[in-house]
Amino acid sequence: MDERKIEKFKKERERLNEMVMKYSGTNIKRFFSIDSQVYHQGALPPKTKELLGLVASLVLRCDDCIKYHILRCHEEGVKDDELEEALAIGLVVGGSITIPHLRRAFEAWDELKQA
Amino acid sequence: MDERKIEKFKKERERLNEMVMKYSGTNIKRFFSIDSQVYHQGALPPKTKELLGLVASLVLRCDDCIKYHILRCHEEGVKDDELEEALAIGLVVGGSITIPHLRRAFEAWDELKQA
Amino acid sequence: MDERKIEKFKKERERLNEMVMKYSGTNIKRFFSIDSQVYHQGALPPKTKELLGLVASLVLRCDDCIKYHILRCHEEGVKDDELEEALAIGLVVGGSITIPHLRRAFEAWDELKQA
Amino acid sequence: MDERKIEKFKKERERLNEMVMKYSGTNIKRFFSIDSQVYHQGALPPKTKELLGLVASLVLRCDDCIKYHILRCHEEGVKDDELEEALAIGLVVGGSITIPHLRRAFEAWDELKQA
Amino acid sequence: MDERKIEKFKKERERLNEMVMKYSGTNIKRFFSIDSQVYHQGALPPKTKELLGLVASLVLRCDDCIKYHILRCHEEGVKDDELEEALAIGLVVGGSITIPHLRRAFEAWDELKQA
Amino acid sequence: MDERKIEKFKKERERLNEMVMKYSGTNIKRFFSIDSQVYHQGALPPKTKELLGLVASLVLRCDDCIKYHILRCHEEGVKDDELEEALAIGLVVGGSITIPHLRRAFEAWDELKQA
Repeated sequence: MDERKIEKFKKERERLNEMVMKYSGTNIKRFFSIDSQVYHQGALPPKTKELLGLVASLVLRCDDCIKYHILRCHEEGVKDDELEEALAIGLVVGGSITIPHLRRAFEAWDELKQA
Repeated sequence: MDERKIEKFKKERERLNEMVMKYSGTNIKRFFSIDSQVYHQGALPPKTKELLGLVASLVLRCDDCIKYHILRCHEEGVKDDELEEALAIGLVVGGSITIPHLRRAFEAWDELKQA
Repeated sequence: MDERKIEKFKKERERLNEMVMKYSGTNIKRFFSIDSQVYHQGALPPKTKELLGLVASLVLRCDDCIKYHILRCHEEGVKDDELEEALAIGLVVGGSITIPHLRRAFEAWDELKQA
Repeated sequence: MDERKIEKFKKERERLNEMVMKYSGTNIKRFFSIDSQVYHQGALPPKTKELLGLVASLVLRCDDCIKYHILRCHEEGVKDDELEEALAIGLVVGGSITIPHLRRAFEAWDELKQA
Repeated sequence: MDERKIEKFKKERERLNEMVMKYSGTNIKRFFSIDSQVYHQGALPPKTKELLGLVASLVLRCDDCIKYHILRCHEEGVKDDELEEALAIGLVVGGSITIPHLRRAFEAWDELKQA
Repeated sequence: MDERKIEKFKKERERLNEMVMKYSGTNIKRFFSIDSQVYHQGALPPKTKELLGLVASLVLRCDDCIKYHILRCHEEGVKDDELEEALAIGLVVGGSITIPHLRRAFEAWDELKQA
């Protein structure tokens, strides 16, 4: 993803989150708050947490979630071989049914590397 | 979804259902018949049943199914806060992996409200 | 489930929740709090919300969750045919893979009725 | 499974199905009827259909369903290497998360072979 | 899918597989190798194995995987009623949540038949 | 889990793996080999890899897999707060449907700590 693509992805995500917030009551809002906080620095560093989020997203096969964590992994300085090893675990745990998502994960990663 | 979008969604759904029927034998046809009848008025009203179908679709993360039940909920007169509370249950049961679908659910709902 | 069985189920659940709390930080605790609040009276009554939780649990095939919501449905005065219609939606949405759980759902319901 | 174990498994299944039937209306009953008919002789023989049901049960990770189809595969004369090849597909598609179920599948098969 | 569409689908799949291979180490490469070999001729013929892969893909609801196995089933000479019976098993096991994928499966099949 | 329980868990796992090997051909055997190698030291340390396996197992809700990775995390010296933060991510991604498994995860962890 070049700069423009990344910006577009982030903006669309933001626009839809505002849509959620427009209709959401306390419970959904609190859920979104926890969903952000579990990835913050703690005993485990954000880098490890983003890899955990990435592998969870891969085995559950959610492209939007995968793309988001790929982006965050890149921001946290994850290296090629670290990413590959994490995705290999996801592939083995989740099976060949994750392969179409694995393909798109590596494609997004490659775009980030080219940018 | 404005009138035109709703019509388009319904027509595409119909076109593909005809494709299913073209190749289907008795078992698939009977399945489709049950799939329609479980949402009919019974001890529970259609409104409650559509909310049940919506939450089941959210936790199983099927956009087409979510959109269909969002449309049906709107037709059955579901109110904003009723929809939000049902989706909040789906979000909590199904986790953050449902969020991309939740976003699109609220977006479809918003379009129906604007129409 | 006779009185004794219900008590035992509730106590085991409580014991394990205390185990979770023993090790949990803020995020897990807040998640558990939301998980309780989404079923409270709101625009939708607790009865409807428990049916939503039950169907979500059936299609995701979690016996513990199903048993808990069966118990709560019973407490909220859900009637036989209401339960059956909700479970029928879960069965149709989730498919025959849910049948072993459907069996145990009706068995728990039957025990509650006998108590 | 020796003769006694097989009988026990079948009886428990029957007992719980009667529980389902006790509370079920038309829709659930019709679903159960279709669930039986899709495995009958057609363009595909029952043997192939049981292998299809087995692999679907493995990737969806339902022990009861797996055991039932293992039993049916045995009745239909499936051979060791045919079973192994079908389960290998399920393992690769579904990933290592299916391994605990794969273990129990082979254990049930082994018991049937010893009987 | 006419000739051109089939070619396009295959090329896109190949392009993305190359992307996977660009970043993959030994484990992912060996996984891809097994993923290919489980569908080869053995005690079960490729035709049966492709039907197994198709039904597994349907109940796990992966459009890319479904499309690929539909294509392979067509190459292996699967007949209309054989395909329908396999998909009927997938529909019953996996439930109405598979219907959007079932629609697209029959649409792809229909396109292959027209080609 | 005291020494005896851990030994029992490991022995049962070994016994069933031998059952798998008794019937398995090359593909399943190679899958098991990869399944072991993806957790070996690489660019990521075994500790991180076990946490990845644990979270993947939690969101896919497999008790046997969770217990195994809990045991391995303990062997790799994972600390209480590191485990809690990883499981919190799993809970948020996978939702309340994972709670029964989360309870058993913490229970197994507690038993290992007491041993």
